Amino acid sequence: MSSMGEDEEVSSFFESSPPLKKMEDILQKLNGFIEHNSSGGGRRIVCVTSGGTTVPLEQRCVRYIDNFSSGNRGAASTENFVKAGYAVVFLYRSGTCQPYCRSLPDDPFLDCFQFLDNTNIQVHSSHVEAVKMAVMDQQAAVAEARLLKLPFTTIYEYLQMLRLIATALKDVGPCSMFYLAAAVSDFYVPWNSMTEHKIESGSGPLDIRLAQVPKMLSILRTTWAPKAFCISFKLETDAKILIDKATKALGKYKVHAVVANELSTRKEEVVVVSSSGNVVVRRDSDKPESIVEDNLIRLIVDRHSTYIKESHS
Amino acid sequence: MSSMGEDEEVSSFFESSPPLKKMEDILQKLNGFIEHNSSGGGRRIVCVTSGGTTVPLEQRCVRYIDNFSSGNRGAASTENFVKAGYAVVFLYRSGTCQPYCRSLPDDPFLDCFQFLDNTNIQVHSSHVEAVKMAVMDQQAAVAEARLLKLPFTTIYEYLQMLRLIATALKDVGPCSMFYLAAAVSDFYVPWNSMTEHKIESGSGPLDIRLAQVPKMLSILRTTWAPKAFCISFKLETDAKILIDKATKALGKYKVHAVVANELSTRKEEVVVVSSSGNVVVRRDSDKPESIVEDNLIRLIVDRHSTYIKESHS
Repeated sequence: MSSMGEDEEVSSFFESSPPLKKMEDILQKLNGFIEHNSSGGGRRIVCVTSGGTTVPLEQRCVRYIDNFSSGNRGAASTENFVKAGYAVVFLYRSGTCQPYCRSLPDDPFLDCFQFLDNTNIQVHSSHVEAVKMAVMDQQAAVAEARLLKLPFTTIYEYLQMLRLIATALKDVGPCSMFYLAAAVSDFYVPWNSMTEHKIESGSGPLDIRLAQVPKMLSILRTTWAPKAFCISFKLETDAKILIDKATKALGKYKVHAVVANELSTRKEEVVVVSSSGNVVVRRDSDKPESIVEDNLIRLIVDRHSTYIKESHS
Repeated sequence: MSSMGEDEEVSSFFESSPPLKKMEDILQKLNGFIEHNSSGGGRRIVCVTSGGTTVPLEQRCVRYIDNFSSGNRGAASTENFVKAGYAVVFLYRSGTCQPYCRSLPDDPFLDCFQFLDNTNIQVHSSHVEAVKMAVMDQQAAVAEARLLKLPFTTIYEYLQMLRLIATALKDVGPCSMFYLAAAVSDFYVPWNSMTEHKIESGSGPLDIRLAQVPKMLSILRTTWAPKAFCISFKLETDAKILIDKATKALGKYKVHAVVANELSTRKEEVVVVSSSGNVVVRRDSDKPESIVEDNLIRLIVDRHSTYIKESHS
């Protein structure tokens, strides 16, 4: 692999990927959504990616490597983008946190409801507000074509769908944004070198060799959607190396900002690293319901406004 | 590791595991549940395990290896055991399929409900039966103390909780059952040899060495709960080796039956492998709502009845 150029690595990744299911269906939904929002109202469109990707270890997949991500950041950011007037393509890992559902209990069908009669469910008073928000706000956003939800599971699905979305958003130009909060695997087992059947256990330790996933961010910036405003994320568990890594990513991928998170404090504060300096964004600790995404999206939307103005001048 | 005995490997696994959180709380619930069902009514108690286990690759876990399992088998079996009069300890992977919720859509809050006013939700007519079943049957089973749900995520949590449950059920003797449908990882990274921080990417391929998880099934049978009726599962993607592997597991772990599944046909049929021969169990293909678990649990319950009779004679 080391002798291949970056473009070649990317082509080779896509060529060896199992093809996306229901691609026609996804494209149709996507194009309708973009058409409705950009041509009609000239609305800004953001693609929010959310949750972790899986890396299958077997073609008939029983085992896989996964990246931890609840999807809370992506879901909360999506709500804030909708509130700020954006249309959101929410590209999310199946089963992760959904917009407007963050404050529901883990087991909502057991904990939220009681039955009155055959068709009417009474919501327990302690959960009325959370359930109301989950059902009403989400349905409203989808009904107004302000929210398009597209699920993925594997790294293969994620990257193919990201390419589809980026290509479809190309003509929206500076009014489009990529907000790449998903935790994308850095390593994978190339499909062609993967074992077909379940790996056998029973004879000592197992050695796995994982190849690096080619970095798609450069291609997104240079080829797929070069005029889109682009925000990437960097998560580390070691605070000492976080800002340095985020700064390197900013230079390498030429994104407009990198949101730096440390695993243990990520719900309290993040650092927005950009060419105009580093800004610490905190949640309003005097308001219990405040989340860091309220202030983060405000800052990102301001930056996007400036970017759009500068692009048109 | 190869010079260690089986018991030593098991002790070493538990000693190096991160301790279970809320253990006191789990034990209290568990003992109350067992007391209520065994002493009071002399009810049979089954521990159904369900879903896959994760294997962290880092102590401050960002990446992990996971086993595919929707939890559908465990959830459907739990419903059938409750129907057959059993009390069920449902030891399930967080986020997997729940009993009575199998026929809900993926995104129930978006697809099932519409609002009438601030507290009343109208269920769309297409989902009335599914939602009614999800809410009513589940709440009834929990309210009657017939269903105790205990979630896990990692292999460390799963095995520690299984040990707790088995030890707590020891006195229930032949009236207790283990129905081990969870997809437990065969390999893991020992906690002590694990990197603390996120594995760095950026410099070529990644090599991972995984150790074998010690087989707990023998210890469950010989030490934790030797009188319990015990059913284990074997999943393969290659039909050619499935029955052979299931037969070997039957002999090695001295369980009362092994349910053999092939990944692609597991919703249509399974083979129950036991010392009295192999029985193919199919769903009733002339009834669209029939599932293989309806017939499987009927067979298992019959076998358990015979086992209890023989134990008392």
